[in-house]
Amino acid sequence: MALIVQKYGGTSVGTTERIENVAQRVAQSHARGDRICVTVSAMSGETNRLVDLGNAIDPGADRREADVLLSTGEQVTIALLSMALQKLGCPARSFTGGQAGILTDSAHSKARILDIDATRLHAQLDDGRVCVVAGFQGRDGDGNITTLGRGGSDTTAVALAAALKADECQIYTDVDGVYTTDPRVEPRARRLERITFEEMLEMASLGSKVLQIRAVEMAGKYNVPLRVLSSFEDGPGTLITYEEDGMEQPLISGIAFNRDEAQLTMAGVPDKPGIAHAVLGPIADANIEVDMIVQNVGDDASTDLTFTVHRNDYDRALEIIQRVGQEIGATDVTGDNTIAKLSLVGVGMRSHAGIASQMFEALASVGINIRMISTSEIKISVVVDDKFLELGVRTLHEAFGLAADE
Amino acid sequence: MALIVQKYGGTSVGTTERIENVAQRVAQSHARGDRICVTVSAMSGETNRLVDLGNAIDPGADRREADVLLSTGEQVTIALLSMALQKLGCPARSFTGGQAGILTDSAHSKARILDIDATRLHAQLDDGRVCVVAGFQGRDGDGNITTLGRGGSDTTAVALAAALKADECQIYTDVDGVYTTDPRVEPRARRLERITFEEMLEMASLGSKVLQIRAVEMAGKYNVPLRVLSSFEDGPGTLITYEEDGMEQPLISGIAFNRDEAQLTMAGVPDKPGIAHAVLGPIADANIEVDMIVQNVGDDASTDLTFTVHRNDYDRALEIIQRVGQEIGATDVTGDNTIAKLSLVGVGMRSHAGIASQMFEALASVGINIRMISTSEIKISVVVDDKFLELGVRTLHEAFGLAADE
Repeated sequence: MALIVQKYGGTSVGTTERIENVAQRVAQSHARGDRICVTVSAMSGETNRLVDLGNAIDPGADRREADVLLSTGEQVTIALLSMALQKLGCPARSFTGGQAGILTDSAHSKARILDIDATRLHAQLDDGRVCVVAGFQGRDGDGNITTLGRGGSDTTAVALAAALKADECQIYTDVDGVYTTDPRVEPRARRLERITFEEMLEMASLGSKVLQIRAVEMAGKYNVPLRVLSSFEDGPGTLITYEEDGMEQPLISGIAFNRDEAQLTMAGVPDKPGIAHAVLGPIADANIEVDMIVQNVGDDASTDLTFTVHRNDYDRALEIIQRVGQEIGATDVTGDNTIAKLSLVGVGMRSHAGIASQMFEALASVGINIRMISTSEIKISVVVDDKFLELGVRTLHEAFGLAADE
Repeated sequence: MALIVQKYGGTSVGTTERIENVAQRVAQSHARGDRICVTVSAMSGETNRLVDLGNAIDPGADRREADVLLSTGEQVTIALLSMALQKLGCPARSFTGGQAGILTDSAHSKARILDIDATRLHAQLDDGRVCVVAGFQGRDGDGNITTLGRGGSDTTAVALAAALKADECQIYTDVDGVYTTDPRVEPRARRLERITFEEMLEMASLGSKVLQIRAVEMAGKYNVPLRVLSSFEDGPGTLITYEEDGMEQPLISGIAFNRDEAQLTMAGVPDKPGIAHAVLGPIADANIEVDMIVQNVGDDASTDLTFTVHRNDYDRALEIIQRVGQEIGATDVTGDNTIAKLSLVGVGMRSHAGIASQMFEALASVGINIRMISTSEIKISVVVDDKFLELGVRTLHEAFGLAADE
């Protein structure tokens, strides 16, 4: 008899009919003898409706009150799902975040979970009831309602699974698992049976929208097996766990990409200590996040520094480094916001050499020029012209044998 | 510096614009230096929207879950009103029923307030903040969300006023006070400056919809001065308090009426002990409430028993007493569901004789036949054909000098 935490997102509970479908799925799990705790988002559209109401009063309203407003979205869903379960003869009870014992800090609208007192949920599970918990919310030490910020329902699910010592945390979404790459770009993309937390973190931070990064981090930290499944069709989904010894690891698990970045280059910078800080300090002061950073040493005691920022920050960042470039005597300052980032992700890289050169060779073979390279232990990212994004994804997908069997 | 509890109903907070108007009104009171606690209903239409969602899942859903669902309506309003107050520079904070310390029993959907721990509200008021409390809801001893049932926001306001030892509880509605009678029936009806709790209770139980009976009872019990005002226009409204010595009491405060009742008569019943019980026992067993009961003793050792029930229960009640009539040998069983009840209400009756005969004379003068009479210390009710209702109201309004000065 397993203890399972299930999470259903806003699309999965978007109408009362869909809520009844979710209830069917939950009731089936319960009927198999498992102990089930479900956490849900607001019905799709509801959070936006509430945000609009708040904005009509004051777009800059107090975050404490915004949390009181927005938290009603999930509260409606937990009541409706509990009703639907009971109608199917499945005993169920709803809990707001606070009632479920989810204690957070007081950072309204982006609170972090400090602790979960699962006493009440355990008692209900022991009585054979399904617990239906509002995602995305909790209460602080003074009893104020807090929200974890958008997407926080995944985090709620993982935190509940950790607190309840659940055997598995199942995230039901509108896709049936994690894919080797985005099937809209590469139709032959294949659903992965398993992927490690580290790979999933890289995939998520590189633009794969299946799971929230925070939830994956937390699942890794507390070693909660995560499974991504479809709420609309049956299937095993993708299991996210730690790498297991003796398990044959694929070399590469997937190819992530994004076109949210822009590239800035300062060329001909006098090469002396502190240059990177002189350039990037003002960028950080402007609250602009930097992703990739590459520095090349030239042969004439000067150096080139290239980095990427989010495309929304491009204009501001360019303005800053043009000013800095003048101050430190750079010969040239350029930028480009028509780039894309392609990344190979796989824990197998740790034990295999030659992956990078294989990647560069594959891209070269179709005429794609690499503008920047950045590597980590389980990832290689390259920046290319964004017009090559789709071609690059398909080329790498083929080169590393990721396609579904024909 | 007074402590005032204000209550705004669903129509008064029906749109974000109206919520901003309410905020203006609250902020003005606060700016005068008063300490203000506001309680609000759900935005008009919102409760029905939530009920419809619940009904789409299961019209007979668990009341605990229905409370979780419905309580979100007021929670949205408290957040929006707090935002609107803060935007006006008026410090404010929202509280759900549970957060405000409103402890109820566990009778979901019709819970009764057991106690209010006003510590948290007092601290906020002492800090100069307006407290905005969700009406209609509380929490039980186990932390479950409860609702007081429809109309319960008035009760919340009075209970908060009692717990906070407020100087006045102001109920803002879509009318500007309590009238001598319904202005739609008698255009010369006059707003009352004051009325006693007892009179207001009679008016409310006789069909005046301005205040909930439970709220009036509670205000009387805890001696909380109640004031009914308009949320759309300025004015003193009507103050509801205990009768004060030395205050000149009007003879009659108002004329209430309703056409919700039906009359049943059993004639020629053998006059012996237990007859009233023999007739009315089966009615009570069928959960039918009886309002007026009149028994006349005839001269031939038989008696007539007449009573009224709600018009919706008429058919069932008639069926029952036809059966009972046969069993106990009544000579005739009749009923009429085209009746109306007219009532004079006034604490002045206590010290003045002759009111009843003046009432009967006035009705006779315009040819209205009285079918039943029932009296209490501060009320005289008569049943007449319902076609005479409007004429009767206007005649009594004139006869007792209630009209506004011309």
